[in-house]
Amino acid sequence: MHAGNRSPVCCPAKLMRRIKATLCYDGTDFSGWQVQPGLPTIQGALQRVLARIEGAPVSVTGSGRTDAGVHALAQVAAFSLTNPIPASNLGKAMNRLLPPEIRILNVEEAQPAFHPIRDAAAKTYEYRIFRDPVCPPFERRYVHHYPYRLDAGRMIELAPMLTGEHDFTAFAASDKSDALGVSKVRTIYSSEFVPHEDRIVYRVRGSGFLKHMVRNIVGLLLEAGKGNVDRAAIQRYLDGKMPVKAGPTAPPSGLFLVSVEY
Amino acid sequence: MHAGNRSPVCCPAKLMRRIKATLCYDGTDFSGWQVQPGLPTIQGALQRVLARIEGAPVSVTGSGRTDAGVHALAQVAAFSLTNPIPASNLGKAMNRLLPPEIRILNVEEAQPAFHPIRDAAAKTYEYRIFRDPVCPPFERRYVHHYPYRLDAGRMIELAPMLTGEHDFTAFAASDKSDALGVSKVRTIYSSEFVPHEDRIVYRVRGSGFLKHMVRNIVGLLLEAGKGNVDRAAIQRYLDGKMPVKAGPTAPPSGLFLVSVEY
Repeated sequence: MHAGNRSPVCCPAKLMRRIKATLCYDGTDFSGWQVQPGLPTIQGALQRVLARIEGAPVSVTGSGRTDAGVHALAQVAAFSLTNPIPASNLGKAMNRLLPPEIRILNVEEAQPAFHPIRDAAAKTYEYRIFRDPVCPPFERRYVHHYPYRLDAGRMIELAPMLTGEHDFTAFAASDKSDALGVSKVRTIYSSEFVPHEDRIVYRVRGSGFLKHMVRNIVGLLLEAGKGNVDRAAIQRYLDGKMPVKAGPTAPPSGLFLVSVEY
Repeated sequence: MHAGNRSPVCCPAKLMRRIKATLCYDGTDFSGWQVQPGLPTIQGALQRVLARIEGAPVSVTGSGRTDAGVHALAQVAAFSLTNPIPASNLGKAMNRLLPPEIRILNVEEAQPAFHPIRDAAAKTYEYRIFRDPVCPPFERRYVHHYPYRLDAGRMIELAPMLTGEHDFTAFAASDKSDALGVSKVRTIYSSEFVPHEDRIVYRVRGSGFLKHMVRNIVGLLLEAGKGNVDRAAIQRYLDGKMPVKAGPTAPPSGLFLVSVEY
């Protein structure tokens, strides 16, 4: 078993590998992505499991920090490891140790400098609004239940206004969590509402997103659907001519990080 | 406001109404249908809410007692009430007070003697087996995840053997919870496995079901899918010629009470 080779004291310098992992999660019972002492977080769960596999602390970086209650269909995370376990087995080992709310979908070797935020070319989010009067218990964790009057046609019509390059300061979190002086200009490649039988789904693809940005866009478009906000007001928010935050911030349960492109 | 009419001391005899309610629930976090002191149950949640609406204890009877972790798409419950609130408003009032895991789908007036067990003509259950190696977090509460080798063709072929009138003693719960001497003969009208992309779904419609019966049928058909049980063994269980229980009992998460016919 060559136990001596594994001793942390006398082993030769181990080769550090960079790993790119794709994962999905049900964010309902988590306090978001980012580690917070004493709270269940996605990053915390991954780091705990990887520390067991590596036998040493492992730092995990995500493509973005999803908020408490927000889900992911394919989040991307990166970390460095010396453990020589093959990538496909690493994914299985992680799934055996992770809670069922978090599932590793794919693990692959990455370039040593791979950085899931800096290297991301585009991200896609989806926001699901459930419109029937009664929300099935099986859906409740994965939608925003809004059973009230809504002009879906107006939301579908106005959603594409968000596309293009804009200063999204009015759509940033009001807690000023984004560093002062850092550009809030982002480019949105597509922005659309698609109606389904019992729901209406917002899908947005862009270069990057500020904290709360998708939920604030959805919140504003919901206000448009309620008749409280018109095209001109949305334009003023996009032109940076409104002194206050657009919004309100739509609840997290309806939001899914769908994919990250590199 | 006629407060005097509402006093529990001096009011005239109130008219008792019989109510039939149809409801769905996510059973994951409940200890089953039946009230148990100190544990969350569906019956307990309904009785607590109705006691608030009625201002007096209300006893709720279900069409059957689903086990801990078992779900319902359309369970039927009955109770008697003097509160004159219209049926449609009663459903809304109950949904406002119930946890989101339980939703009232329909409330209607019933005959005074309506009994949801005795009057049931047929019941349909569904059991969902998820077969992909990784179970999406969004499905995990609502399937039995079985990612191992399974001869689905054999399960599809053998499932219809259960149809017809049989003594289902071998498929009853081993805890002897069904009263001794009470007939365990039931009639199954249809019994089939249907494969889907990532899952295989068992659907069974019958006159009535013993405790654990559907889960024990699925457990036995899973054994057939694994190659451990053949047609002759299933026939012996159905003929009452096996000294032991058929099974094992499949886990509750995959089971849904789909509908009750009257």
